[in-house]
Amino acid sequence: MNAPAPSPIAARLQALRARLAQQGWQAALIPSSDPHLSEYLPERWQGRVWFSGFTGSSGTLLVSPTRAAVFTDSRYWEQAETELAGSGVDLVKLDGPAVPAYVQWLVEQPDLNPGGGQALTLAVDGTVMGLAQAQMLADALKARQWQLHTRDDVLDGIWPDRPGLPTAPVYEHALPYAATPRSEKLAALRQAMKDKGATHHWIATLDDLAWLLNLRGADVDYNPVFLGHALISHDKVDLFVGEGKIDAALQARLSADGVLVQPYAQALPAIQALPKDASLLIDPKRITWGLREAVPEGVKVIEAINPSTLAKSRKTHAEAAFIREAMARDGAAMCRFYAWLEQALGHEHISELTIDERLSAERARQPGYVSLSFPTIAGFNANGAQPHYRATPESHAQISTPQGLCAEGLLLIDSGAQYLGGTTDITRTWAIGTPSAAQKRDYTLVLKGTMGLSRMRFPRGTLGPMLDAVARAPMWEHGMDFGHGTGHGVGYFLNVHEGPQSISKAVPDANMAMQPGMITSIEPALYRPRQWGIRIENLVLNVPLVPQVPDAPVGSPEHGEYLAFETLTLCPIDTRCIDLSLMRDDELAWLNAYHAEVHRRLMPLLEGEALAWLLERTRPLTR
Amino acid sequence: MNAPAPSPIAARLQALRARLAQQGWQAALIPSSDPHLSEYLPERWQGRVWFSGFTGSSGTLLVSPTRAAVFTDSRYWEQAETELAGSGVDLVKLDGPAVPAYVQWLVEQPDLNPGGGQALTLAVDGTVMGLAQAQMLADALKARQWQLHTRDDVLDGIWPDRPGLPTAPVYEHALPYAATPRSEKLAALRQAMKDKGATHHWIATLDDLAWLLNLRGADVDYNPVFLGHALISHDKVDLFVGEGKIDAALQARLSADGVLVQPYAQALPAIQALPKDASLLIDPKRITWGLREAVPEGVKVIEAINPSTLAKSRKTHAEAAFIREAMARDGAAMCRFYAWLEQALGHEHISELTIDERLSAERARQPGYVSLSFPTIAGFNANGAQPHYRATPESHAQISTPQGLCAEGLLLIDSGAQYLGGTTDITRTWAIGTPSAAQKRDYTLVLKGTMGLSRMRFPRGTLGPMLDAVARAPMWEHGMDFGHGTGHGVGYFLNVHEGPQSISKAVPDANMAMQPGMITSIEPALYRPRQWGIRIENLVLNVPLVPQVPDAPVGSPEHGEYLAFETLTLCPIDTRCIDLSLMRDDELAWLNAYHAEVHRRLMPLLEGEALAWLLERTRPLTR
Repeated sequence: MNAPAPSPIAARLQALRARLAQQGWQAALIPSSDPHLSEYLPERWQGRVWFSGFTGSSGTLLVSPTRAAVFTDSRYWEQAETELAGSGVDLVKLDGPAVPAYVQWLVEQPDLNPGGGQALTLAVDGTVMGLAQAQMLADALKARQWQLHTRDDVLDGIWPDRPGLPTAPVYEHALPYAATPRSEKLAALRQAMKDKGATHHWIATLDDLAWLLNLRGADVDYNPVFLGHALISHDKVDLFVGEGKIDAALQARLSADGVLVQPYAQALPAIQALPKDASLLIDPKRITWGLREAVPEGVKVIEAINPSTLAKSRKTHAEAAFIREAMARDGAAMCRFYAWLEQALGHEHISELTIDERLSAERARQPGYVSLSFPTIAGFNANGAQPHYRATPESHAQISTPQGLCAEGLLLIDSGAQYLGGTTDITRTWAIGTPSAAQKRDYTLVLKGTMGLSRMRFPRGTLGPMLDAVARAPMWEHGMDFGHGTGHGVGYFLNVHEGPQSISKAVPDANMAMQPGMITSIEPALYRPRQWGIRIENLVLNVPLVPQVPDAPVGSPEHGEYLAFETLTLCPIDTRCIDLSLMRDDELAWLNAYHAEVHRRLMPLLEGEALAWLLERTRPLTR
Repeated sequence: MNAPAPSPIAARLQALRARLAQQGWQAALIPSSDPHLSEYLPERWQGRVWFSGFTGSSGTLLVSPTRAAVFTDSRYWEQAETELAGSGVDLVKLDGPAVPAYVQWLVEQPDLNPGGGQALTLAVDGTVMGLAQAQMLADALKARQWQLHTRDDVLDGIWPDRPGLPTAPVYEHALPYAATPRSEKLAALRQAMKDKGATHHWIATLDDLAWLLNLRGADVDYNPVFLGHALISHDKVDLFVGEGKIDAALQARLSADGVLVQPYAQALPAIQALPKDASLLIDPKRITWGLREAVPEGVKVIEAINPSTLAKSRKTHAEAAFIREAMARDGAAMCRFYAWLEQALGHEHISELTIDERLSAERARQPGYVSLSFPTIAGFNANGAQPHYRATPESHAQISTPQGLCAEGLLLIDSGAQYLGGTTDITRTWAIGTPSAAQKRDYTLVLKGTMGLSRMRFPRGTLGPMLDAVARAPMWEHGMDFGHGTGHGVGYFLNVHEGPQSISKAVPDANMAMQPGMITSIEPALYRPRQWGIRIENLVLNVPLVPQVPDAPVGSPEHGEYLAFETLTLCPIDTRCIDLSLMRDDELAWLNAYHAEVHRRLMPLLEGEALAWLLERTRPLTR
């Protein structure tokens, strides 16, 4: 036998440790984060992957002179164990907040004990660390005689061939889809700044920037955004963006609205050059420690949520109309896919990968399609029980061969796309063969959760987390639950996850108040490890209800404003998986009404086998 | 016409203003609060009533050299307007947090503008101001160039005949009801102190004290508590209580458990004399600013919820058994009362006051009865629409005369009692004559809310506020809501309102986690101003559910612990007020099962007309 090839990870960590020693740092932290706190990272900021070998989308690497560990949550434990095996990097299983776990690890390292009252140094690149998170970490370290060093890029000079900044061109979100002119959005933003007493405002988050300026890009996967910052004052906007990404014609149109394009590298100098009498509005959840540290002394800092985050969460009537159109297109693609799938079972080679390809191809044929909105999750049986599963060429389930079915079971597909007129995100769980009684029970409880929340009416301003229990109640009744949130906000041809609203067990804050125009997912689920997973997800729009008593006097019970959910997602729900004995009459009526609406809206977009399939799968269910 | 008699309030405020001038204070604040942050105040601390004339149970008086104002919330606006008319005291209607409103009022006073950078002084008695509230006030004042002076009793020397400290004797909560010995409670408390690294712990809240030491008293109305403080260390408890209130025999028994009785006035000196190396556990929500300020420098202060508050919220099996007994007694009293009421309507003189008298008399006849647990709310029609209504000899509704009914409508009765074996709190809304269709609709929606939450099952540790929407959903569906919480904790022969749990729109904190043994009210409502009010309230006990799958593997959906509510309150719900078209079959089944249980449990305790009434009012309801 030959000796095993030396792990590339060991050599990379060695380079990192050499830098630690050279700089006099005792440890380094490499987060999963970029200067814009994005969900999907440009490769340049995937240092944790490069230095540890762990490729999951969430995880932090800590390195000491002798040890290294990846911290990640339960979604990634299995993957991390596999990928880290033999690398010399330990796995720390996060089962709670991250900051105390990092600090605990540091103080437990035998070679890292502070002696004689001298503080030890943990280095992290402050320009990619969220302000709130870094503040917490700095405080926790201080209590244990550690200090946080944030002024250097830890990876500088030790990552050969480190990818550069992405260079995709920036383009205008076209009319008619960009229904609100940027001048109007800027005017509203400046009013919000004035209301808070701010002369300046910094935006670092990419979806806020794209929304505000009606621009889009392709710098990160799945989110149609571009790398940039903006500094907004009362008479101009400095837009910091990679050179050559905005062509002259678009620069001219931006200039007409007072938006001046500046080099991306000038962002930090610009914040450092703020006038001393400025008052700067920043969002501590949407800005890095590095930018905050660059604010000159004397500048008054006003901390509040980005006004654009609140504004973009509330879709306009014009946007809602385009979204309904996109939902119908997306639903038609789903129907065409399922119609193919059902007739192909047992006649064609079908795996989880085939499903992704076929479904994505159907979406790509739809007018206005731009890209997927996140990587498709197609999980058959046990794979569906992993909420963040992704099939790979190396590992995926087979469902059918040309010679017959491979297996019976449940196929969970969570997928979505970016259209010029909206962003979609839908999960359906489909029967392959005949579902068992236990599968039907689980499926029906999940469906009851989806329906129960979809039908809720509630006072305007109700905090999203306060609605969470409604979706869980049918599962709770049977002693079951699911480990993720019930609903997240969704952008308008923007990020599939956006704030500030959330329907989850999160501790609510005032920004989570439900408002007309907000789009939220409703996606309760049940996961049976090593057996099956079920999730049924629709997107819903917050719509104001016409008051029952239009002239109700102030103070009367009927005076307040109420909201309801309009279900936007249009696609059949597999009624073959339903246990009718668990469905109440009113629930059956809701489901049949939903299918009638799906039928009515999708019929004009389908023909042939797909149309026949739609008719079959939207037939009213009766006892 | 004669000139109107000079208001006594004016003279009292004059004395207060003279003291302001003499002390160099610019303004004074008189809260509704005592040194123990009690809900019901001994007269000695009802200074706000004496100096303003406003008698509502919640309100704060602010006095400047020329102006005075009472701040109170919407429950009391009408009453305050009436009582303050002509007194020279303004009403400030609180419609949000109090602290900014106080500060706003101060800075708006034209005679109270800070000049030349000199801070102005607001005086408040720090010994009656909650720590958290005072901290907030001090911070808010500081930002407006005011300072808070807390070292003096503002009312000292200017309130002739100010009542002294209450003198009711302290007695032992008797066996078998005090099922857990105080030695056991003290051992658990000391373990909790140790876990937090505390050598000492201070208890100022009266129900914590009474619970911990198995003592009871009668110093405040409705709550069987006594004025006192306790300082707990690892080997003894100093109990500060008025001299002569604990007799020698009880002192001896306390002493055997290491509890030493000390004079009440020695409390402050005792905290001032804490050893410098002490670490003191205090609950910032359950201690005054004055006590916190008295802690010597050097003592380490550990802030956390009182361990006794958490422990007493979880009733033991033995306590639950006595509570079930008390609930049956209380239900029997309710039945005897309603049986009398229904036959007396149109034959006797009945007013809201008569109702209170009759119902209280029925309760007083029950074994183990000690007192009412709060002032009875008996509100007929429009009076029932005031959630905190109380009939008075001067103002109350007539319901019936010997010559016939006065009026038809809805009678809301919210009442309860202290028994040696438990505390009750029940609301029923009863039809007098034939309810209208609108009344039936409202009634049914409220009932659906009570039933919906009563039937919930949920994971152990679910935060109470996350369940609130379940009770409101049926009303929200019709565009209606109610303006108070859905449920509060209830003590065991202790306060009818106790923490830490809460089912309400409150922002949840970790202490609000639902745990086995907690007792909570469920009391949704609808109020039609000037027409009627409906509230249906039961107490429920958190009981653990036997897991559906006893050997469910860790990580499986069925692994966690689940809780359900056992309805403790036993009394018919008026089925004549139900609109059957709004009731689902499963709701009807719940109601019939509840009535069958009420029938089964109360039958042995009733006879004659009351028994016949019970049979009639618990008959199954059918479509």
